Amino acid sequence: MSEKAFQDYYPDDLNHCYGCGRLNKHGLQIKSYWDGDESVCTFHPKPYHMGNPGYVYGGLMASLIDCHGTGTAAAAAYRKEGRAMDTDPPLRFFTASLHVDYVRPTPLDGPLKLRGRVKEIKGRKVVVTITLAAQGNVCVRGEVMAVQMREHLRKGDR
Amino acid sequence: MSEKAFQDYYPDDLNHCYGCGRLNKHGLQIKSYWDGDESVCTFHPKPYHMGNPGYVYGGLMASLIDCHGTGTAAAAAYRKEGRAMDTDPPLRFFTASLHVDYVRPTPLDGPLKLRGRVKEIKGRKVVVTITLAAQGNVCVRGEVMAVQMREHLRKGDR
Repeated sequence: MSEKAFQDYYPDDLNHCYGCGRLNKHGLQIKSYWDGDESVCTFHPKPYHMGNPGYVYGGLMASLIDCHGTGTAAAAAYRKEGRAMDTDPPLRFFTASLHVDYVRPTPLDGPLKLRGRVKEIKGRKVVVTITLAAQGNVCVRGEVMAVQMREHLRKGDR
Repeated sequence: MSEKAFQDYYPDDLNHCYGCGRLNKHGLQIKSYWDGDESVCTFHPKPYHMGNPGYVYGGLMASLIDCHGTGTAAAAAYRKEGRAMDTDPPLRFFTASLHVDYVRPTPLDGPLKLRGRVKEIKGRKVVVTITLAAQGNVCVRGEVMAVQMREHLRKGDR
């Protein structure tokens, strides 16, 4: 596993996202890394991130899947180009669609472990499938279709 | 539009959800109402609910769709039974699956308007389609498959 997270390479002007922005002090600040061909992310939910008492809120898990998905998409695009994430031009992705299946209730007392895998990478589009596990059980499955931002979109007008 | 929100009728022991729980002081506390055959919810995002600068975070919108969906499912189930939401037994739904399409970037400076419609209601399952609009434009489309909790599930072991 690499030491620096995907999100630590995002350009500062695109690093304010509530889910994964290093510069959003109110946000979740998730961190994603390669583990071989899979991407991994561990998140420690707060007690107030509950849905029903004792279980994690589904919207939080959708958010984690969303940002771990776009992060994995970016990292995969750099890998495909055979270059490191600190090289230019920067590649950043937004979410076109998100699907989440809640397989079983997710206990709130412990870390959530996400694992992502690139299902498809073609042109500006990357599809990432993600599992979210707690206490050793896969509780949620997600899929993110991420699309690479065009340069001008970074200026705030996509 | 009724004066009391769907969520205001949830039993106290199931009213701690980060997205819609009246008793979660850290949460989003969304409120949903009937407007004829559609359910409506207005949410004012905070400045830190951003994805890219100037735009709303997709995970927040997935969360709003999730909770507006389960709220609409519950309200629809009471309607189908021809009784008010303050009558027993209480009906409460969890999310089985969630799909979100991000049609266009959602501007952060203004309220988000969600409208839900029951697509299917059969047995314990309710499917709700939802649009999310900002500044008069539909920016996001979602679909929630909600399933009614069994009574014993309310004790924390679903």
